[in-house]
Amino acid sequence: MAPPSSLKKVCAMKSFRKELWFQVPTRRAYINITPEVEDALADSGIIEGLCLVNAMHITASVFINDDQRGLHQDYDEWLERLAPHAPVEQYRHNVGEDNADAHMKRQIMGREVVMAVTEGRLDLGTWERIFYGEFDGRRKKRALIKIIGE
Amino acid sequence: MAPPSSLKKVCAMKSFRKELWFQVPTRRAYINITPEVEDALADSGIIEGLCLVNAMHITASVFINDDQRGLHQDYDEWLERLAPHAPVEQYRHNVGEDNADAHMKRQIMGREVVMAVTEGRLDLGTWERIFYGEFDGRRKKRALIKIIGE
Amino acid sequence: MAPPSSLKKVCAMKSFRKELWFQVPTRRAYINITPEVEDALADSGIIEGLCLVNAMHITASVFINDDQRGLHQDYDEWLERLAPHAPVEQYRHNVGEDNADAHMKRQIMGREVVMAVTEGRLDLGTWERIFYGEFDGRRKKRALIKIIGE
Repeated sequence: MAPPSSLKKVCAMKSFRKELWFQVPTRRAYINITPEVEDALADSGIIEGLCLVNAMHITASVFINDDQRGLHQDYDEWLERLAPHAPVEQYRHNVGEDNADAHMKRQIMGREVVMAVTEGRLDLGTWERIFYGEFDGRRKKRALIKIIGE
Repeated sequence: MAPPSSLKKVCAMKSFRKELWFQVPTRRAYINITPEVEDALADSGIIEGLCLVNAMHITASVFINDDQRGLHQDYDEWLERLAPHAPVEQYRHNVGEDNADAHMKRQIMGREVVMAVTEGRLDLGTWERIFYGEFDGRRKKRALIKIIGE
Repeated sequence: MAPPSSLKKVCAMKSFRKELWFQVPTRRAYINITPEVEDALADSGIIEGLCLVNAMHITASVFINDDQRGLHQDYDEWLERLAPHAPVEQYRHNVGEDNADAHMKRQIMGREVVMAVTEGRLDLGTWERIFYGEFDGRRKKRALIKIIGE
């Protein structure tokens, strides 16, 4: 008869964690990270569950939308209209900083996405792709993938 | 003594998946899907866990707010002010498309909601209702319900 | 040999629920609730999993950003520009109400955050702090913490 401690292993919920690192040469960028998240899911061995992907920085986003260059340019101009970078003095946060606008752009695009994992795959619609949205780049930053399930 | 394989069943995390389909006759609409999500939760038999509901299209939202017609009209006009549909030529995405604005409206309203499941019910505040927000309708589209827990 | 019912306990997914209550004296406020969420996680005993924190009211937000007073003032002015409170008659929702703008501000800032729990701690980036954003205060309101995992 197996000892109780072995039962735990049989039925334990699995969890998997991975960081993705970025160093974007420009202030703003939109990077398709769907392949990296799919690889993480495959590494996790999780078949049914939930997958969280979030920016670990407060001037960046993780969001799901279309992988279409024209749309990303539209997003960039639209976000700049809603929360302009300059003049930097318009924001109280910009004392020794110049990234207040990035904190706002990130709120519109969101910090995180939560996706279903079904039969070992990301359960996404036909055109859903996962993006890291950078609004204050030119330094090392990271996003977190956390998958739980079984 | 039960064989090890039966132990798995006893303690397995449950997961439940269901798609909701929509064909909205107008370009934009706000549809209360709370009853459908409650039905899915009842079907799942899950008592404690998390419930994800997300749009599977990148020009639609799932969000939580008030079921009040005047508010939905206010949302509609406000989103149109922040991300106008016309002139469609103002967006680079609109080459053979006319829905760039829908990709923006959806980012403001959000792709998904994650709700607690407690004692077999959606753990919502008094006025919280779940909506499917359509920003580019007049065709078949869907949302995903995924519930995990036990 | 332990009876089957005891096996369930050994391997059950844990879930933990806690409400946080607020009574903000002003219409709008941004309150750091990170210590309260950390305390809830410690109370839960959960080591690996997901932590959801959501507003239970539709005129409030839970979001993650910087704990910096200047930034909060910037947010406040920016949200007021995107969705002005006055004149209240500009919104159809404001029949016997004056809080339509709060329903909009909350959509930009978001209803909820989902965080990873890793090795018994909130798996946050260096500057990530959790906030309750109030947009229609001066009455009792609450947020929900739900943690699942093991």
